[in-house]
Amino acid sequence: MPKISEEARERRRDEILAAARRCFATYGYEGATVVRLEQQTGLSRGAIFNYFPSKDDIFLTLAERDANRLALLWADEGLEAVIRAFVEEDPAWLGAYLEVGRRLRTDATFHERWKQRAPEAEERIKQRLEAALEAGEIRDDIPLQSVGRFVGVILDGLALRLAAGFPSPDAAELIALVESAIGARARTRTPRRTSA
Amino acid sequence: MPKISEEARERRRDEILAAARRCFATYGYEGATVVRLEQQTGLSRGAIFNYFPSKDDIFLTLAERDANRLALLWADEGLEAVIRAFVEEDPAWLGAYLEVGRRLRTDATFHERWKQRAPEAEERIKQRLEAALEAGEIRDDIPLQSVGRFVGVILDGLALRLAAGFPSPDAAELIALVESAIGARARTRTPRRTSA
Repeated sequence: MPKISEEARERRRDEILAAARRCFATYGYEGATVVRLEQQTGLSRGAIFNYFPSKDDIFLTLAERDANRLALLWADEGLEAVIRAFVEEDPAWLGAYLEVGRRLRTDATFHERWKQRAPEAEERIKQRLEAALEAGEIRDDIPLQSVGRFVGVILDGLALRLAAGFPSPDAAELIALVESAIGARARTRTPRRTSA
Repeated sequence: MPKISEEARERRRDEILAAARRCFATYGYEGATVVRLEQQTGLSRGAIFNYFPSKDDIFLTLAERDANRLALLWADEGLEAVIRAFVEEDPAWLGAYLEVGRRLRTDATFHERWKQRAPEAEERIKQRLEAALEAGEIRDDIPLQSVGRFVGVILDGLALRLAAGFPSPDAAELIALVESAIGARARTRTPRRTSA
């Protein structure tokens, strides 16, 4: 194999990731066979696996990049931007996240790796939430950690439903519902119980 | 094969389902092999497949029963009861739902079947929501259908996170957050935008 520069390696690596992403989005995790990865990337399996130890590793790299991208979006531009990004995300690719869920459940090593996937972004989201709490914009009758987890529940559910091809509320409705749930107005008295 | 009564067949069918449920919960969908199903049920594969055409069919029957049970719980006892049931559900079994998500995405026939899985319960949930709206308990500035879908997003996300072994808010916190999101108080004015 000819020697290539670090920069060229990095570029090639990104090309493989981009092609693999299309492949996973089109065929799903199981259906994205090595043959299909070869076709999409235009490279031999030998060349591909020179950059990544396995198909699994390609997938996890992509999933981690996306998770990081969305976490940074939340940290930098706020929750509304994240919700919009989720709603506009390619449902086929969101579907690949079901594989992440399955792996999290069955693979302890992966579970640990995933928990640590975006420590910097996680920290910045925490700071953003704390600042919003300080500013009196978030309810203070529920621990901030639970508020953050609640938003996580919604984003996960959104990914699942969009991936499955089921309707979700539109982005504007979702944002209004989430704002009502976590905003400071919610704390002023115990919400009246609905019989919903 | 000896003739057995319809009642005995029904009982045997339920026994197979109960054993298979434990098997899916322990080993996941992929790991619940026919050999393991034989061990758990104490029946031969011939006997099992006399009751169900395939492992897939056993799984879908279980998933449909659970979905129906939870939908009826919502219709009869309200959202709070459903949220509690989700939080208390066996995470391993919730994990099997990831398989439902994957199938919904890739199998159009299954998608149609799943949409029709609990028409009676769906109708009763709709009536319950309509009654709560009439009673002024649910916000009326967002279509009721979107409110219902929002709750669906939360339940799906909850299943995904619990299945993956990640923390979610506890049941009481979740209920307070959801009540704030969909309750009538939310409608009285545009919620103040948080910078969360």
